[in-house]
Order: sequence, then structure tokens, then C-alpha cells
Amino acid sequence: MSDAHSELSALMGPRYSRSAADRDAHAQSETHVSAGPPEGVAWPETTEEVAAILRICHAHRLPVVGWGAGTSLEGHALALHGGISVDFTRMTRIVELRPEDMLVRVQPGITREDLNRELRATGLFFPVDPGANATLGGMAATRASGTTAVRYGTMRQAVLGLEAVLADGTVIRTGSAAPKSSAGYDLTALLVGSEGTLALITELTLRLHGQPEAVSAAVCGFADMAGAVDCVIETIQSGIPMARIEFLDTTAVAACNAHAGQDLPAMPHLMVEFHGSAAGVAEQAQRFGEIAASQGSAGFRWAEKTEDRNALWKMRHNAYPACLASRPGATAIVTDVCVPISRLAEAVEDTRADIAASGLPGPILGHVGDGNFHAILLIDPASAGERATAKALAARMAERALRLGGTITGEHGIGMGKLDYMPAEHGPAWAVMGAVKRALDPLNLMNPGKLVPPHDPV
Amino acid sequence: MSDAHSELSALMGPRYSRSAADRDAHAQSETHVSAGPPEGVAWPETTEEVAAILRICHAHRLPVVGWGAGTSLEGHALALHGGISVDFTRMTRIVELRPEDMLVRVQPGITREDLNRELRATGLFFPVDPGANATLGGMAATRASGTTAVRYGTMRQAVLGLEAVLADGTVIRTGSAAPKSSAGYDLTALLVGSEGTLALITELTLRLHGQPEAVSAAVCGFADMAGAVDCVIETIQSGIPMARIEFLDTTAVAACNAHAGQDLPAMPHLMVEFHGSAAGVAEQAQRFGEIAASQGSAGFRWAEKTEDRNALWKMRHNAYPACLASRPGATAIVTDVCVPISRLAEAVEDTRADIAASGLPGPILGHVGDGNFHAILLIDPASAGERATAKALAARMAERALRLGGTITGEHGIGMGKLDYMPAEHGPAWAVMGAVKRALDPLNLMNPGKLVPPHDPV
Repeated sequence: MSDAHSELSALMGPRYSRSAADRDAHAQSETHVSAGPPEGVAWPETTEEVAAILRICHAHRLPVVGWGAGTSLEGHALALHGGISVDFTRMTRIVELRPEDMLVRVQPGITREDLNRELRATGLFFPVDPGANATLGGMAATRASGTTAVRYGTMRQAVLGLEAVLADGTVIRTGSAAPKSSAGYDLTALLVGSEGTLALITELTLRLHGQPEAVSAAVCGFADMAGAVDCVIETIQSGIPMARIEFLDTTAVAACNAHAGQDLPAMPHLMVEFHGSAAGVAEQAQRFGEIAASQGSAGFRWAEKTEDRNALWKMRHNAYPACLASRPGATAIVTDVCVPISRLAEAVEDTRADIAASGLPGPILGHVGDGNFHAILLIDPASAGERATAKALAARMAERALRLGGTITGEHGIGMGKLDYMPAEHGPAWAVMGAVKRALDPLNLMNPGKLVPPHDPV
Repeated sequence: MSDAHSELSALMGPRYSRSAADRDAHAQSETHVSAGPPEGVAWPETTEEVAAILRICHAHRLPVVGWGAGTSLEGHALALHGGISVDFTRMTRIVELRPEDMLVRVQPGITREDLNRELRATGLFFPVDPGANATLGGMAATRASGTTAVRYGTMRQAVLGLEAVLADGTVIRTGSAAPKSSAGYDLTALLVGSEGTLALITELTLRLHGQPEAVSAAVCGFADMAGAVDCVIETIQSGIPMARIEFLDTTAVAACNAHAGQDLPAMPHLMVEFHGSAAGVAEQAQRFGEIAASQGSAGFRWAEKTEDRNALWKMRHNAYPACLASRPGATAIVTDVCVPISRLAEAVEDTRADIAASGLPGPILGHVGDGNFHAILLIDPASAGERATAKALAARMAERALRLGGTITGEHGIGMGKLDYMPAEHGPAWAVMGAVKRALDPLNLMNPGKLVPPHDPV
């Protein structure tokens, strides 16, 4: 393999590194998932460089894994079978901003917070918000969503087109700047969520939305979990266009209080946000308030001012580190099921009971307006027993979600953590994914070992 | 091949036919596109029958083409390379209606009008409306959209999951009943728009929407085409959530008047619809009215009552036969470009000038809120010269759409009519479509000759 590395060094100069520090930095994971470091790290700045890197790797049959902000929860970006990490953090440009078409073309390494900072003066914003300040390329590769998907959709809806580089270095463009098209297979949708197993994304065309005239947010405690969850179900079924509707159970609230210096009462909470005209927001808030009251809400704490709202959502976005901090030294197995809204109460309540019976700490929280929630199973990394208990809990959550008509992952993706559940979710369709993978990447160089059934190169 | 036909007869009994009448009925086309009849027609009633049909065809290497309502404008369902037509008009059941999750599972042969009739009592509706009373399976296969896509999206957004049968008879399920998922490749999105070239769709899970509290519609004439188009652009950019915003040029208006017995003034028109609360609809209508007035609108004719609205949209939906009737004996080459909204005026005006210079009649109309419009080029089927002129016009429209960042087809699909433009739109990505096709259908039995680059069986 030394040839490949020499060629990469010759191509990239100091932007290709084989130092232990750089390699280890690309072997870190936010969760229990782990793998060894890549053999080298490249920092391309242009599509042409990405294509040149892939041509070299293809010629030498060296695996390639993309790297964004490193915020994956399932080890997507770990080099499971060696090869190199292609780090996109130097490809952060806004290529073209077209407010008149409500779209923007960006390089994949820009983060969602940086993008929204750049958009602020235009009156537009990019809504998809997975919590972490992830890169847009990583969000597309994972088909991320988060707190606002209930209103604005996920990366599936947000990505209008892509530029991507295939395993052999071929650069393709998918989609267009038109709002819709019937011109052949939807390769954009195929690449969104493909986790780097088919191609590396080098540019994204994203739909933008108008900044709402009025925004209002609140937290709202409930006497019990059933009341909070039933409130969500009734709210969604009533058609109130919630911009956000998040659930935190009592354990998650306690962790957030401790981490963010807040004083929310020790009860399950919903965190909600309304977007619209001033009159529209008031009307939505009133309708939601009536439903919440009928489900035993303990009243609202409103955050009308921007800084109060920001504090609220910062607390929510830091719920994961807050939960981790609630058990010092712990690592986490993070579950991510998503069920039809009508089955949400059953899914959450059975999960709660199951976790309680296990004895493990496992706060529950999630984007419940989508039927999507997480249990953060906190385990002692040195305890094989706790790991086994947590894995069994996670497996039962996945099975329960499938039994209720849902999915094993609403937004975190498969990575290394969820591969074992793929046959149960997809049956014979999993082999179809494998066939697509082999067709586009016959040498199995693109993030091998992830997403599709294990297979040898063709 | 006689073996295959005997086996199909044995399997299907009278629901497999080789009569000339049945074969000819499955060789008809609504436009200039034509091909010979299929070798036989099967009318399955269950997924299992579809799978059994495909197993027989696979064993005998007999091509298979799906058939819905026969309303394709590009010859999608014509048996270009022989084989059989699988007619889904006996698979029209609603499999499961889940109003509490705002979704419905249907067999592919149900039409959108029948579906909405069944939904009426639930307070929900299925919004995608391509005009023709197409089947849901056909609409998914074509990635159809139509008048309401500007508000509710296309079949891309409407389809949550599919059941489909692959070339070898394997039955797969894609997606789930959950509102979102990150579990692997988005095979639902891959099949939606695949025009029967990868699989036959045997069941669809569709998102439904709440019937709006209030609906209001109007027609509105403009002194000139530029005013009408600029009104659309400004309306979309202002964020008014139009439920429909349709354009008809003066020629199209004249054709509709004659066909529907209406008396719209001889000028370009917009046909609009607003959905929402009573107050919301009033506010939207007022904001739109201000923009229209500033662009030289000649005032509104409102259709508040359901029957007036139905008459209005019936006229719009019959615009295609109306245009055909405006030149007795003519056939049509129907174009279907879609451009970014900011380039709509340039696209429409250049098209208008180009058609005028050609001397052919070519009314223009379309779903302009999406940047999508059609010229219906009316030609004498016996005139090779007119056909060549129209084809050259259509080619220039496609090139213009691509130059403006758009697509060669917003909603009609590729079929036989637009295959020649695929390289210009997709470049190297077209070959990727071909690779996906070969991976899923190596014998090239599924609607061969359509959508992907021409190729022999593997």
C-alpha cells in the first residue's frame, strides 16, 4: 500500500497526513462504537482533489471513508476495514446563494450553524437541525433530521441535488435547481442516507425556507409520561403545524437541569416551538395549550425572546452530553427508533418499563412529533455485563419499533451500530441494497463494512 | 415463447388474454408516441399473482410492462420490445386506512379520484393531482405531480413505502409506516419515478393530508404574459402558501373556452386556489390580489362554491383534450420543462417566441408555481415536416430548461419520448442509472428500452 500513500502525499502535500495524532483524531466516536484509526487522512479543498484521491485509492484498492464533524452516533465515519479518511473540513464554501429560488449550493464541510449564520441577512434559513453542529455533507450521508423535521422535513426533503464522486473517481451531478423533476431514477435520494458507501458528496443544493415572521417557544411539564405522549399524539393528529415538539422524560430533565443549570420541575416535559405570522403563532399556541391542559399539563414556561429560546434549545441540544455527564465515566448506547404516531404511547411506555426493569440508567427523549425517540443507555465501558444488558434492551426496542410498523433508526443511521437489525427491517430488500452497492462500487472501497450485507469485492 | 404464454394462461385463466382487442387496447397512447401491441395482457388481483407472472416471464425471458390507466403522455406503458402488459386495474383495493397516522395503504390500480372518494368521510385527502384520473401505481412509477405540488409536493413526498416485485419474482417492501427513517438506501425513492424498469409496484403506503377548513379558487386575467408570469414569481418568492397556481396562455384559454363552454377573456390567465382556515385563506387571497394588481391583472372571477370550483378545475384538467380539439385531427408532442422559479419568465417568453416563429399551434400552460410548464405542440400526424418542426422546438425547450438550471421533465417522465435528452441532463449520472438497472434487472426484462441507456441483457 505504500505506493498509494506516496501518491496521495504527492497529490496533497501537507494536506495528507499519516501522523498518529491525525489518524487517532479520525478514530474517535461519540458513543460506544469503536474501530482502529485510518491509515491516513486527506483534507481536500476541491471536487477535483476528491476525484484524484479516489482514483488513487481505486487503483490501489484502498478503502475510503468520508469525515465531517465527527458527530455520528453510530460510527459511520470509522475506518472499519482500514484505508483513508477524507476529511471535508476544508471544503466549507457557499458555492452559490440564490435567495430568489430559495436555494443554496454548498460544499459538504460547512456546518449547519455556519450556514445559517451566512444566511441570516437574506431572510432565509436552513431548517434541518439534528442538534449537533454537523456538516451538511455528513447530515446528507446520514439522512439526518432532528428537532424541526416535524415541520420542515428531513435531509430527504432538504436536498435538491448533489455533486458526488464515485469509487473510480467519476464525478456525477444529480437533481437540478428546479423544484421537481421526473427525469429518471432519483439518484439524489439514493445518495442521501447512503452513508458514504456509494460515493463521496462534494456539493449539495439545499432548499431554504423563509425565516418565520414570529417564533415562540415553551417548555411544559406533565404529571406523567402518558399525558405528555398523548398530548403529542393529539397535537399531531389535530394538524397544528408544530415547528418543534420534543419530549424529555424525568431522568432526562434531571440530567439537563444539572448540566445546564436549569430548574425544570422533576416531571416529563415537552419543549415546543411555533413558527408563523404573529396571529398564526398565537392561534397555534392556544390550540396546543388546550390539548396540553386536557392531558394534565402543569403549565407553560414561555421563551419569547431570542436569547431565552436559544438557551432552551441549547439545553435540548446538550441533552446528550448532559445524559453522559449524569453518570461519570459512562459511555452510551443510543437508540433511535421511530414509530407511527398512533403507536408512540405504547412504544415509549413499554421502553420505559423495559429500561426500569434492567436497572440501567436510560433517559428517554426525542422528536416525538415524528414518532422518533431515543433511550440513552448509560453503561460502564468496563462492564461486559452492562453492555450485554444494554444491547439486549436496544434489540428489544428495535424489535418493538418494527412490530409497531416503524423503523430501527429515525435519524442516526446504520453505521456500525445497527447493521445487525437490517435483515429484520428490510427482509429481501436488504439484498437489493447490496446489489446497488455492488453495481456502483464493485471493489467495495467506499466505507466498506457499513449499511449493506457483508460481501467480498466482485 | 409459446411456453410462457401457456404457463400464463394456466396461471391466470381468463385473466390472461392474447386477443387482438385486448392487446390493441394496451398499445394506445395519448400522444404522438407509439409502439406495437404487447404479446398478451394479464390482469392480476394479488401480489402473489404478480410474483408468479414475473417468475414465468423471468424463466422465459419475456419482457414485462406495467399498465395503469393508460394516461401516460410519453409512452411509458407501451411494450417497446414485446412481452406482456401487466394491467393493474383489478388491483384497486384500499388495503388499510389509518386516519390516526394520516396514511393509507392501497393497491396500485386504484385511481386518485376513487381514492379521494373513499377518503371523503375521514376528513383527509390525497393531494397529488396530475389532472388525468391516473392510478396511484402509475403516478408513483412516473413520479407524477400536477396542480397541487406547489403546496403538497409530488409523488416523491407522497409515497412513504412500497411493496414491489422484482424481475425474478422476489417481493420486497420498502419504507415503513413511520414518518421518517435513516435505515439504509431509500429504495422507496429509487422506485418512485423508475417507470417500471426496476420492479412492478404492488402496494403503496401514502401520506394523507387534512382536508382544508376553507378553500377558495379564482381565475384572473392579465394584460400580457409577462405580467402573469411575474405575478407567479413574486407570489412564490413572497411565501404565500398557494395550493394551486396555474398558467394558461391566450391560445390555451381560447381552447378551454371552446371545449368547456366558458367565456374567459382572450388574455393570459392564472387559476389559483387557497387552502387554510377561513381567516388564512382570506389573508392569502388578499396578499395574492395585491401582487396580481401590481402586475396588471384584469380582476378576479371567484369560485367559492364547491361546484364552481369543480367546474374551474375540470376545465383546467381538460385543457389537454381541449387543446387537441382546437386542431381537429391533430396529435400532440407535449413538452414538460421545469426551471428554477427565478428563470420562469425567461423560459416561458423564449418558448412563446420560438413557437410563434415556427408557425405551429402550441398553447402553453402549466404548474408555474413549481416552474413547470408545457407547450402542447399540435401537429398533423401525416406531416413529417410538422413533426420535425415540433421535435426541434421540443429539443430547444429541453436545452433551454437545462441551460437555465432546470430539467427536461417536471412530471411526465421519460418513457419513450424523452430518452434522447437524458445524456444532456445527467451526463455521467445516466450511466449510474444504467448500472442500477443492470444490478436489479440483469436480464433487462422490466420495461426494456425505457429510461436507462440502451443495453443488452447481462
